[in-house]
Amino acid sequence: MAESDDYINLNKIDMSLKELLTEMKDISEVIVDLAYAALMFDSEDIAQEVEDLEEEMDDLKYAIRIKAMMAARTKDDAMQLSGLLQIANAAENIANAAADMVRLQEFPLEQRPFLSFILKESEEKIRMTQLSSDSDMVNHTIGELAIESNTGMRIIAIKGRQGWIYDPEPDIKLRAHDSIIVRGTEDGFRELVKYTSGKEAWEPEEVATDG
Amino acid sequence: MAESDDYINLNKIDMSLKELLTEMKDISEVIVDLAYAALMFDSEDIAQEVEDLEEEMDDLKYAIRIKAMMAARTKDDAMQLSGLLQIANAAENIANAAADMVRLQEFPLEQRPFLSFILKESEEKIRMTQLSSDSDMVNHTIGELAIESNTGMRIIAIKGRQGWIYDPEPDIKLRAHDSIIVRGTEDGFRELVKYTSGKEAWEPEEVATDG
Repeated sequence: MAESDDYINLNKIDMSLKELLTEMKDISEVIVDLAYAALMFDSEDIAQEVEDLEEEMDDLKYAIRIKAMMAARTKDDAMQLSGLLQIANAAENIANAAADMVRLQEFPLEQRPFLSFILKESEEKIRMTQLSSDSDMVNHTIGELAIESNTGMRIIAIKGRQGWIYDPEPDIKLRAHDSIIVRGTEDGFRELVKYTSGKEAWEPEEVATDG
Repeated sequence: MAESDDYINLNKIDMSLKELLTEMKDISEVIVDLAYAALMFDSEDIAQEVEDLEEEMDDLKYAIRIKAMMAARTKDDAMQLSGLLQIANAAENIANAAADMVRLQEFPLEQRPFLSFILKESEEKIRMTQLSSDSDMVNHTIGELAIESNTGMRIIAIKGRQGWIYDPEPDIKLRAHDSIIVRGTEDGFRELVKYTSGKEAWEPEEVATDG
């Protein structure tokens, strides 16, 4: 999946305007969480993902601009599409700001403030928990477990044997010893850790018996 | 709470650097959700709140810059603080992008694309539900109900008789007929509506009997 800097992903041109804008919206939301997570856990991997997502945003922005020009037939069309481009632009600016944030890690250590200490005070906290091999969440997908509906914790990223998965889809299966980065309230996190540690059985009926 | 454009809130100078950056982080996260909500529900009120929060960010940015200059005694201090200012800057840029997004509403109607249609395709959806007078969530605080831990739905804003409350604190009490704007999964929303509609009793033990 590695792409050189000057490579423009032309496949994205085939996406509809709706798909393009939806993807930009989704990235603009997750990238802010990822940027704060990168700073909190001083993680170069997560910082790299933020930079990759920012590049993807550039491709999407290019694709949506071309697509909009091709779609405009009348002045009314063009006016509507200019509004859509304004949103795409704002979404891209959010990604750029997130990437600026993580570039702090290129600075020498003494230039970095004690960020994790600072960010710990925030209302919605970003935290990490590891899945014990005793946890009965192991070998179930995120969708089966419905972790977000059941605990309120949103999974931002998972680190497993294969490396990182960011903004994971519901069909991703959890494995023993995976580290999970989540965002949510203190109560929700305390609840989640009961299950990830294996101290309590995962009760909700959403757990399917066959993976 | 109305402030003229050129008024600088000097009270913010009394906040610690940590408090200032934490507040900027919290705003940078909620403001993106609010901007998308304003577009989805074509709400001038929510758009106004986005613009107010952007102004608050300007005040915070000014305060953090002054505070950082006052705090720096040595070159090491100054280098650390410059990193902190870079994050503050990125948080402010996110707020600026969110405000750009909602300024689309100042355009004539024909310039606005069918945004709600587009945003409905997004993974994490923003939705609205109204609290029935039959719901036993009525007269309980958000904290007592632990809505986020129990359903995974994060409350972005509440519209009640007194107007809008954005990014509500846990001590806010829900009233009959309040409209709640939430963000989360489809499953979580379906779950939540069972209770807001009064069709099912709110079971979780977190409900205290006295408000």
